[in-house]
Amino acid sequence: MKNYIGLDIGGTKILGVLYDEKGNPISKSKKKTKASEGIEVVMEQIVKVIDDLIEDNTVELAGIGAGIPGLVTDGGIITFSPNIPLRDFNLRKVLNKKYDVPVVIGNDVNVAMFGEFKYLNRSDLKHVLGLFVGTGVGGAIIIDGKLYQGQGAAAEFGHMVVNSDGVFCGCGSQGCLEAYASKWAIQEFLRSQIKKGRKSTLKDILETDDVIKSSAIEKAYSEGDEITAEAIDRAIRYLGIALGSLINLFNPQMIILGGGMMESMGKTLLSKLIEESELHTMPGLMKTVEFKLSELGDDAGVYGAYQLIINNK
Amino acid sequence: MKNYIGLDIGGTKILGVLYDEKGNPISKSKKKTKASEGIEVVMEQIVKVIDDLIEDNTVELAGIGAGIPGLVTDGGIITFSPNIPLRDFNLRKVLNKKYDVPVVIGNDVNVAMFGEFKYLNRSDLKHVLGLFVGTGVGGAIIIDGKLYQGQGAAAEFGHMVVNSDGVFCGCGSQGCLEAYASKWAIQEFLRSQIKKGRKSTLKDILETDDVIKSSAIEKAYSEGDEITAEAIDRAIRYLGIALGSLINLFNPQMIILGGGMMESMGKTLLSKLIEESELHTMPGLMKTVEFKLSELGDDAGVYGAYQLIINNK
Repeated sequence: MKNYIGLDIGGTKILGVLYDEKGNPISKSKKKTKASEGIEVVMEQIVKVIDDLIEDNTVELAGIGAGIPGLVTDGGIITFSPNIPLRDFNLRKVLNKKYDVPVVIGNDVNVAMFGEFKYLNRSDLKHVLGLFVGTGVGGAIIIDGKLYQGQGAAAEFGHMVVNSDGVFCGCGSQGCLEAYASKWAIQEFLRSQIKKGRKSTLKDILETDDVIKSSAIEKAYSEGDEITAEAIDRAIRYLGIALGSLINLFNPQMIILGGGMMESMGKTLLSKLIEESELHTMPGLMKTVEFKLSELGDDAGVYGAYQLIINNK
Repeated sequence: MKNYIGLDIGGTKILGVLYDEKGNPISKSKKKTKASEGIEVVMEQIVKVIDDLIEDNTVELAGIGAGIPGLVTDGGIITFSPNIPLRDFNLRKVLNKKYDVPVVIGNDVNVAMFGEFKYLNRSDLKHVLGLFVGTGVGGAIIIDGKLYQGQGAAAEFGHMVVNSDGVFCGCGSQGCLEAYASKWAIQEFLRSQIKKGRKSTLKDILETDDVIKSSAIEKAYSEGDEITAEAIDRAIRYLGIALGSLINLFNPQMIILGGGMMESMGKTLLSKLIEESELHTMPGLMKTVEFKLSELGDDAGVYGAYQLIINNK
């Protein structure tokens, strides 16, 4: 029986899962990425995860899929990664040579949202978008059931301009969706309001933690924290603008909402989000879009990587 | 030798061209659409154009392609057309039954920009966007060399929100690209400035004509007409915002710029447009996008329709 490995290579940890041919997980391995220790150590860690998963002699490895933060071209050349010291590095070739199996690598958010799509197992769906709202905002474009990656960097939904006179974004542009709707942007908004002397139940956490948990934001919001409500309303407004534009561009059958913010707050916010999207969608197009919250949580990355390799080997 | 017909069905006229297998035009026919006279008269006009093209006995008709303004689903059901009285009308089935050849129909702007793409005859290009700037703003998404139509209404580039607090758009949304960059929007801007008492060489034309020619706008711009310069700068700014977002979404290899406004002013404005786009594009992505002005003019529609049928029969 053939086996496949799905890898989720993050800035702090590498998660690997061994799957059988039917997509059932068989075993799991997790190691630190050790990104600060340089490329060779990172490669050792990746290899350790894989070796862990195949040490059982009954494993017949048939392919490796991986998601990695950053720009990935030709199915496996890491052109640039913000958190991992792999630059212009052909990870696909290295792993292919070492294990002698097909390897496909993609951008982590693209891959995770592709995993969410495939997990639905709905053959009627051909054209689907995945919007990922976490610390940053990203996404995935699925066309004819396949992950569309352009020249390697497609689906940067966080960097659509939603407010041309708006706040500056880390990417160099102005008014990007990520500057309003990411957890990072929400935090920045909360910090700016607290600096003005406004009260919030999140004040202490924001002062001690660099990055707060989505669940903490959810809690403050549901308890009626005023500035949290303002931050979330602002995020929803701009997410609606972006979703309206995306529906007008792609005329998709479904939009899947994922990422930490959506996992924590999706159920609470979904109806508001649909309402805001409809304001910016051309007449008629909303009727044929289904909205869906993601289901896989932290497993989306490895499962998407498994789907990437079995669909592209 | 097999022949194909490309039809460009517009609100005022129907243009048809008979092509040989290699895409060389053989003959041409043009009739009024007679849109105001109802669906049966319009169908008669379409049939007259086709019959005109095949009356020579040597023609071996092998397929018909057509572009039509409006929402087209399933390759030929006109769900809605703003200017032609075909609503929920299966034009594909009607023509297929009458002529017993494959028929494919698409949105006119999608089809015309697909024609521009295929005319380049560049097999290295897989992922390309066509931005159409005419009386309205539209476009085409080409993925893996094929026209992507979503559920029939994709590529509504004119209805991306580029300014969330901006002017209202005919579609019901606010701050759409079309409300800034279309010829219609440019005219509205000029009229509003003239009402304020500002001078313009376009004043007389704007007062007598409903829709002025792109070439008249080009002339006023090149002669230094102040409010025309303001209108064009505003259009370019928002086109740049939209193009930046589109590059971040699709990571395309090429952007083709077409439509009346681009045909008249493209050469003059291209470098400014690229400059503005770059302000909103993620680092690195501009390097791998080629910008190209369309070449086919009024023939884009019929040629695109021919390409649609030979690629989808």
